[in-house]
Amino acid sequence: MRTVFWQDGQVKMIDQRLLPGEEVIAAFATVPEVARSIREMYVRGAPAIGATAAYGMALAAHISAAGDTQSLLNDLRQAKETLDAARPTAVNLAWATRRLLRVAEQLAEDAGAAQLEVEELARSLLAEAEALADEDVEINRRMGFNGAAVVPDGANLLHHCNTGSLATVDFGTALGVIYACQEQGKHVHVWVDETRPRLQGARLTAWELMRAEVPMHLIADNAAGHLMRTGQVDVVVFGADRVAANGDVANKIGTYKLAVVARENGIPVYCVAPTSTVDLELSDGDKIPIEERGAGEVAEIGRRPVAPTDVPVYNPAFDITPHRYLTGIVTEEGICYPPFTASLEAAVERGRAAIEERRAARSSQQ
Amino acid sequence: MRTVFWQDGQVKMIDQRLLPGEEVIAAFATVPEVARSIREMYVRGAPAIGATAAYGMALAAHISAAGDTQSLLNDLRQAKETLDAARPTAVNLAWATRRLLRVAEQLAEDAGAAQLEVEELARSLLAEAEALADEDVEINRRMGFNGAAVVPDGANLLHHCNTGSLATVDFGTALGVIYACQEQGKHVHVWVDETRPRLQGARLTAWELMRAEVPMHLIADNAAGHLMRTGQVDVVVFGADRVAANGDVANKIGTYKLAVVARENGIPVYCVAPTSTVDLELSDGDKIPIEERGAGEVAEIGRRPVAPTDVPVYNPAFDITPHRYLTGIVTEEGICYPPFTASLEAAVERGRAAIEERRAARSSQQ
Repeated sequence: MRTVFWQDGQVKMIDQRLLPGEEVIAAFATVPEVARSIREMYVRGAPAIGATAAYGMALAAHISAAGDTQSLLNDLRQAKETLDAARPTAVNLAWATRRLLRVAEQLAEDAGAAQLEVEELARSLLAEAEALADEDVEINRRMGFNGAAVVPDGANLLHHCNTGSLATVDFGTALGVIYACQEQGKHVHVWVDETRPRLQGARLTAWELMRAEVPMHLIADNAAGHLMRTGQVDVVVFGADRVAANGDVANKIGTYKLAVVARENGIPVYCVAPTSTVDLELSDGDKIPIEERGAGEVAEIGRRPVAPTDVPVYNPAFDITPHRYLTGIVTEEGICYPPFTASLEAAVERGRAAIEERRAARSSQQ
Repeated sequence: MRTVFWQDGQVKMIDQRLLPGEEVIAAFATVPEVARSIREMYVRGAPAIGATAAYGMALAAHISAAGDTQSLLNDLRQAKETLDAARPTAVNLAWATRRLLRVAEQLAEDAGAAQLEVEELARSLLAEAEALADEDVEINRRMGFNGAAVVPDGANLLHHCNTGSLATVDFGTALGVIYACQEQGKHVHVWVDETRPRLQGARLTAWELMRAEVPMHLIADNAAGHLMRTGQVDVVVFGADRVAANGDVANKIGTYKLAVVARENGIPVYCVAPTSTVDLELSDGDKIPIEERGAGEVAEIGRRPVAPTDVPVYNPAFDITPHRYLTGIVTEEGICYPPFTASLEAAVERGRAAIEERRAARSSQQ
């Protein structure tokens, strides 16, 4: 099953806040509600957020009461603004809404003086959102097998946060590399960082890997250094919420410490992210906005206090890993190596061309 | 109030497992029960464990049914074995029980052919345990002011685990440095690592610092790297469960990652530990036994599952920080700098001489 999908005129998704205890499908029927699903983390993971936002744009067209092309485009621009504001760090959000908005603008341009039919546009946007979701799965599989090439048989991998099926539409980014290893018949074992404060590793990655029967152990984030220093980690893998043009990576808080300690111990470090996560407009990572979240994520666990009442908390959701700590960045267009400025630009270019080719192929089939 | 103390023939302590929610005093009347209080972490922190074990030895004499000197010494040796086995990593445990046993052996030797009186020996051992506890507080204050000398006014400190009053008899080791800064009128701010899996930072250090009105913010351990990379940390301080002869430090899991990332960012790193924590018999840190604790500490929080049922867990309680990552080791006998093999040996020698001097002073007062 997919993490996020369209059904009966609604955007539906697994409520990841309840995993692994409960498997509940939540449904959202308005754009502010879809934005809330992202903000409150029913859905998380940059690619999954991107697909959710794409469906949110399709939903905006689907429920629009606009009577003319301009009102319709205004509704969509408003929807994009609402969705983009849901979370600041992942670039896939704005990437996806921009892609959907461009389809609408292109259709409006093609229509010229004639008014666009709302229904026709809604159908086109839903088709684009579905294509984006399908592509995500296909891209993840290619990325996973690209990454698997650098993972030796018998490897111990260290993994941070959740980057699996649940972080994407399906298959995953860094966990996709592990699934690809498994499909290739390699024997790998995964050290799963629990990933405080929201415990995506304990709740989601452990759940995914146990279902997939991949050998694993859950660890406190604090234990990762000990494992690396004592020779029990061969490769470190994680995803990304945004990659700057120079290869600096914004990812789940704690990634930076991992990468520094891995390099200190001569362990290869791979960031695994589709080219849609690369933001060529930002020259380096320090320009990426870092979301700060509420105190409750740290001071409470499952709504039970684990610290004194009213304790002051600082809770950044992401950190920046400077590119010098990365061995490579695995994309669906191959593994980018330093100098990243050149390799990432080329990969993004190939990724964009691939989207255009697939769009042309879909058009010619219609 | 002291973390651990003797009252009415029992060893009493604050049940730290219940903090900050409840403040409960637990009492233990047998040696296996005192060992359990250490193993189950009613009390934790190397110096506090040492004092608890000393009172445990006094208790063994207090309740002994032995009729002659040899049986009494056997009871004490048995008690030492039971107490030493409670937790493997902190060296203060065996250091304290050895110190108490030696007092008994010396008294037996002094008595010669005459039988020792059980009551007299029990009084002597209790006096020694009380002296050890009193010395701990005095040593901590000296250590704290030694450390405060390297903390500038206005500093942001990063602190791991709990090393405060609760980790010692009173005042603390690394937190003692912070309390000393406060007494000196310096303005400092503390980033408090929550310290998974047992959350000693969130539960105990935050509680202590808030009561002491020291400005602080609680953070997920994962956030420490981000703070260091962005220039928001001036000094890193932590305690130790055992320091090897070469300066390698066994401390709460996660310390190693902190120290590596601090050095990477040019931030001074101080381990704060009394000379009783230095084990000159171990040449380096890799010879220090690392305790592994149960899966529940990671897979459950407050007995509520945060991961799938039956998830495999690896849960080492400590890690080793090689001495090259340390700026200095703060002891009650001054700050030891590299080469640590020489500076630690000298500090330990001064520490032992100080204990002997205090013992002689007590004897001459009697």
